[in-house]
Amino acid sequence: MARIDGREYNELRPMRITPDFTKYAEGSVLIEHGNTMVLCNASFTEGVPRFLKDTGRGWLTAEYDMLPRANRERSSRDISKLKVSGRSAEIQRLVGRSLRSIVDMSILGENTIVIDCDVLQGDGGTRCASITGGFIALAMACDRMVKAGVLRKMPILDYIAALGTGILHIDGEDRAVVDMCYEEDSTSIADFNVIGTGSGRIAEVQGTGEGRPYTMEEMMMVLSVTMPALAQVIDEQKKVLRELGIREWIL
Amino acid sequence: MARIDGREYNELRPMRITPDFTKYAEGSVLIEHGNTMVLCNASFTEGVPRFLKDTGRGWLTAEYDMLPRANRERSSRDISKLKVSGRSAEIQRLVGRSLRSIVDMSILGENTIVIDCDVLQGDGGTRCASITGGFIALAMACDRMVKAGVLRKMPILDYIAALGTGILHIDGEDRAVVDMCYEEDSTSIADFNVIGTGSGRIAEVQGTGEGRPYTMEEMMMVLSVTMPALAQVIDEQKKVLRELGIREWIL
Amino acid sequence: MARIDGREYNELRPMRITPDFTKYAEGSVLIEHGNTMVLCNASFTEGVPRFLKDTGRGWLTAEYDMLPRANRERSSRDISKLKVSGRSAEIQRLVGRSLRSIVDMSILGENTIVIDCDVLQGDGGTRCASITGGFIALAMACDRMVKAGVLRKMPILDYIAALGTGILHIDGEDRAVVDMCYEEDSTSIADFNVIGTGSGRIAEVQGTGEGRPYTMEEMMMVLSVTMPALAQVIDEQKKVLRELGIREWIL
Amino acid sequence: MARIDGREYNELRPMRITPDFTKYAEGSVLIEHGNTMVLCNASFTEGVPRFLKDTGRGWLTAEYDMLPRANRERSSRDISKLKVSGRSAEIQRLVGRSLRSIVDMSILGENTIVIDCDVLQGDGGTRCASITGGFIALAMACDRMVKAGVLRKMPILDYIAALGTGILHIDGEDRAVVDMCYEEDSTSIADFNVIGTGSGRIAEVQGTGEGRPYTMEEMMMVLSVTMPALAQVIDEQKKVLRELGIREWIL
Amino acid sequence: MARIDGREYNELRPMRITPDFTKYAEGSVLIEHGNTMVLCNASFTEGVPRFLKDTGRGWLTAEYDMLPRANRERSSRDISKLKVSGRSAEIQRLVGRSLRSIVDMSILGENTIVIDCDVLQGDGGTRCASITGGFIALAMACDRMVKAGVLRKMPILDYIAALGTGILHIDGEDRAVVDMCYEEDSTSIADFNVIGTGSGRIAEVQGTGEGRPYTMEEMMMVLSVTMPALAQVIDEQKKVLRELGIREWIL
Amino acid sequence: MARIDGREYNELRPMRITPDFTKYAEGSVLIEHGNTMVLCNASFTEGVPRFLKDTGRGWLTAEYDMLPRANRERSSRDISKLKVSGRSAEIQRLVGRSLRSIVDMSILGENTIVIDCDVLQGDGGTRCASITGGFIALAMACDRMVKAGVLRKMPILDYIAALGTGILHIDGEDRAVVDMCYEEDSTSIADFNVIGTGSGRIAEVQGTGEGRPYTMEEMMMVLSVTMPALAQVIDEQKKVLRELGIREWIL
Repeated sequence: MARIDGREYNELRPMRITPDFTKYAEGSVLIEHGNTMVLCNASFTEGVPRFLKDTGRGWLTAEYDMLPRANRERSSRDISKLKVSGRSAEIQRLVGRSLRSIVDMSILGENTIVIDCDVLQGDGGTRCASITGGFIALAMACDRMVKAGVLRKMPILDYIAALGTGILHIDGEDRAVVDMCYEEDSTSIADFNVIGTGSGRIAEVQGTGEGRPYTMEEMMMVLSVTMPALAQVIDEQKKVLRELGIREWIL
Repeated sequence: MARIDGREYNELRPMRITPDFTKYAEGSVLIEHGNTMVLCNASFTEGVPRFLKDTGRGWLTAEYDMLPRANRERSSRDISKLKVSGRSAEIQRLVGRSLRSIVDMSILGENTIVIDCDVLQGDGGTRCASITGGFIALAMACDRMVKAGVLRKMPILDYIAALGTGILHIDGEDRAVVDMCYEEDSTSIADFNVIGTGSGRIAEVQGTGEGRPYTMEEMMMVLSVTMPALAQVIDEQKKVLRELGIREWIL
Repeated sequence: MARIDGREYNELRPMRITPDFTKYAEGSVLIEHGNTMVLCNASFTEGVPRFLKDTGRGWLTAEYDMLPRANRERSSRDISKLKVSGRSAEIQRLVGRSLRSIVDMSILGENTIVIDCDVLQGDGGTRCASITGGFIALAMACDRMVKAGVLRKMPILDYIAALGTGILHIDGEDRAVVDMCYEEDSTSIADFNVIGTGSGRIAEVQGTGEGRPYTMEEMMMVLSVTMPALAQVIDEQKKVLRELGIREWIL
Repeated sequence: MARIDGREYNELRPMRITPDFTKYAEGSVLIEHGNTMVLCNASFTEGVPRFLKDTGRGWLTAEYDMLPRANRERSSRDISKLKVSGRSAEIQRLVGRSLRSIVDMSILGENTIVIDCDVLQGDGGTRCASITGGFIALAMACDRMVKAGVLRKMPILDYIAALGTGILHIDGEDRAVVDMCYEEDSTSIADFNVIGTGSGRIAEVQGTGEGRPYTMEEMMMVLSVTMPALAQVIDEQKKVLRELGIREWIL
Repeated sequence: MARIDGREYNELRPMRITPDFTKYAEGSVLIEHGNTMVLCNASFTEGVPRFLKDTGRGWLTAEYDMLPRANRERSSRDISKLKVSGRSAEIQRLVGRSLRSIVDMSILGENTIVIDCDVLQGDGGTRCASITGGFIALAMACDRMVKAGVLRKMPILDYIAALGTGILHIDGEDRAVVDMCYEEDSTSIADFNVIGTGSGRIAEVQGTGEGRPYTMEEMMMVLSVTMPALAQVIDEQKKVLRELGIREWIL
Repeated sequence: MARIDGREYNELRPMRITPDFTKYAEGSVLIEHGNTMVLCNASFTEGVPRFLKDTGRGWLTAEYDMLPRANRERSSRDISKLKVSGRSAEIQRLVGRSLRSIVDMSILGENTIVIDCDVLQGDGGTRCASITGGFIALAMACDRMVKAGVLRKMPILDYIAALGTGILHIDGEDRAVVDMCYEEDSTSIADFNVIGTGSGRIAEVQGTGEGRPYTMEEMMMVLSVTMPALAQVIDEQKKVLRELGIREWIL
């Protein structure tokens, strides 16, 4: 009983990370989290935006988009409306901010990494999967640049991953449930995106009351359920990197 | 010593709310919070977006923009780049979401309220001032519609206001300081926007590690300093509404 | 009898000019002309557009916009239609042309001044108020640059101000009335915007037959009523500059 | 001595109007005025813009564009910059306003006429040629609609034509010269576009000081030279309409 | 020796078609042709564009895009330039035209099918893979609609598939080689896209001389090598449809 | 009996080429092919796009547009929809590709030629007329540059021209007819644009089955009827160039 797909409150959906899904990007993974499916490609390019010229520091930015038929209904492409959807604008800023928070820009030097997150299929948690998968693509790209002698060492300071936790009314109670799928998300009382690091800290929290405002206690409940789940996701990331032969560099 | 402008950690900047700053909008206030100055206009119009047709429910949306010379440097208008800035897109979604969270859309009926927030001068906390001032404009517009017999009663369920609290390294410690001005914001370790209600709940939290990720304890510290300060802001809102002769309707 | 607000044919609406309404622009005024309210900010920046590179000459340009709820009805923002409204395009060209006509670009050097005119409230004559207020903002910015040693002397050659005069059918006659408010404007037979200088010359006239074409005699009547009224507006400008401690520099 | 192309101060350039230059438009002329060459097409369509629905009244609007190589230098197309040039926006508003001023919209009924003015070659006076030629195209379209029984009578109340007159320093004097070519225009002291009617009235004047502001006397001088020249242009229009077999309908 | 990847002149690259790669579209396949990888999704929606209203006939349209890192170099998204690339515009018109040529629009009724072709990885022949894969997605969508009783029978009249054949200088001769990869394409003398049907006819040919114009004989050589190869591709399509349990309906 | 305008199957419409239709472009012709009327202007400018910098090679590009009232119905301008129509995008790519195919870019040097093709009136075959007329404009511009000493010799390697041939059902048979007018085009079974050179080769073929797919035999029939007709068009081009005093330079 309980969750719509039979999971425990703190149970993640199956996660599958396929590195090198495409072959040209410096780092590429297809991340599947439940039915959510995001292609994350990291591109390494020389040069930085103007505001960083001659600072010796690099930059990282992210772009996020959904294919038109990633969802139950077809949505039109941004280009047909000549506008980035507000939702995509919000999400790509979040993904960029989160991944920047664990990169040492002075090690990166005057180079720019672009993380493209294209949602092939969406079933809740696409922004979180973009961060979790984007981290792997980023690490692959940096590792390749270290091996090519372009970077003197890995510029990544910590692991980072994200989960969407909600407050749902289940079994007569308002409970925190981690890693919501779309159907859960659309009936949640409150909706939290928690971006956490390998060291157990928080890079960003966004918590929105959907059905009603929430209390500080509820927020605590959400975080205490999410942090251990995030650790599990990060273990998954470590496993993938190990299998790719990328030796642990984060202390 | 301590804060750049001599305030206590939990001390708000002076807030001045000028209702009826312009005369055509159904609700209009100029809110000044420190040097931040936002003109909030609420427009009431018949009809709803397509996805709400024939549901008997209303809608509220917000638009946010900065005048080109609201800041230290002139920035170009969105129209000259043919793009809503990502930052504005993110903020106007937040303002709309926050204000919707305290409106009963079934009382509003098939009408739409647009809250225009135009920043005349920015010195930190413009999104928070937009929410705090936008609430007053919203209440004025609803009151007018109730008096005109268009709405049968106030559709607003609770007060709502927002504050930007940061973690700053001051006096050798990482401290939570409320209502940051621009200079504080630009050197903060972490930056929280907390949107709270009159009943002491949270409508939304966005907390971002700027200098480094933060801990759950730090987040608690931020919230425990912010919630009482939000209550002060809401007292300010109540005073303004009282002076406007809008009788308290929220239980 | 006579005019809708009781004024004489040649009587101006009350004008209020608030310098330093915002604090970051090199020059800033809020001009209120009757119920029309325009925020005029002058920004001084180094460099010139490409066609003036290496000529030793500067440039001045203007941008004009209305806030969505400046008027009786809310209008959508240009960015939501991805087009500068034709009306705004026309007006900002007029404002720029007019202010350029009294600036000595060789004294300005290879610098650019942008005059942003944002209408907070519109009740007729917004383009004229933009020119009249824009002049003050321009003078404040130039004065600051002279005091800062960036400019060797004031590059402004003359005062400039503007008024909207119409031909209205009042008391059984077609009469010229100066400084029309919105209601007068919308029923006028002909509508003239006259931009005049401190030396009593004309920088630009735009005269449009709205209800019917007009005669040369009518045009003369309009001008002979407008020129003295413009002198009054320019006296107002002089007073404001004096109060700001900007010594008269125009011979 | 005198004008660059040897003309008298009040002498027009040769004007050639070729009706039916294209065959699909309800009215079509190629107007050549000196080297300026504008294709004016009038399209008659059922229906009106929303603000005129159910008023029984029609509408007329104009669009103006220059082909990329109409001028000495190739200019890029508006679409490549995704912006109507400010200049084109200003001009097409002028053309539409001028032609609307001589149309009785109640006779037109709920129909819309679009006047497309495309400059094939520009040598000064393109906006004036657009109005002068646009009038012929308009008259042809209306005549066709009367003959087809769609309109019960000609909705045109008067002739309308336009000329660009300038103040030029020639032979040691500041003189008014009519129908400036591009080279004259680019060295003029002041530049007037005068739109006049068959009854000798003025539909619109736009007079801009280019080199310096001008006096009322100079403006009078300009008008007194322009009005007779406009009468000549209107005679030309009458001749063309007569040759097309459109009987005079204007009293 | 000969082709860069060791293939015979008339040998196809390995083709892999994965139906139901995503789960929400009415028809979905991932088609891999060599290293080219295109996700083709068919969306079935009620209603037709305006020009088909009340005709009883349906419509099919295609959209084509490349993910930013589908290629060796990252390319920016169309939305960041606010323009559909000319290349994409050309290709999506070709894909739509080709697929429409084998659909009976009267059987489709007033419904619209959109074929989204998103290139995940590009190595030559992406437009051809879009047509070949798009056909399968289309057939899956139609089959589902027949089974759901929305369509009374399959509206598809024939198979359709596409191949890119070039004229290459190999082994001292100008030879026709089918199914070029990117490296072949970029050095080809001429480049043909041939879209053929199950009945051995041609829906469209586009043949471009890249290095030099070509002769009619060369064009014949290209076609005679391409047509049998297209038959092989169509056999592949039949196999996939059979495995999906879609019974042959084309006579 | 047979063709709608009485022509033989292989008979061209009358073609009229007016060189120097406008005077500023380096090369300018008005080409009239039947009722189709296209103004082709060639602009020669220094410099090349970035991808050709420092290669010593030049570039040629084309732009194609239709005036709003070139057709039976008025169509709106691209700028009013902020999108280049897909059709125009496709055509201008074809025109550019075709004309590039006969230019030796190393003789052109680091210069760019833009061919602007603006359709004043459309009656079928506008893209073909753009190529045929564009060639003349190109040759005129190159000749002028040779005469001015900017180019050391003509960079044009061959003549190029285009014709639209269709398969039409006429007199009980499916016949190939050259140089279709609009009415023929809109009822054709298949539609071929054939771009051929002076040496009898093919620069590009685009053949689309409109009513049904076509056979290789039909394609051969189309080409064998089109190639001699193209030779006639090229004879026409030679005559025009001779009359312009441009001596034959193509061997």
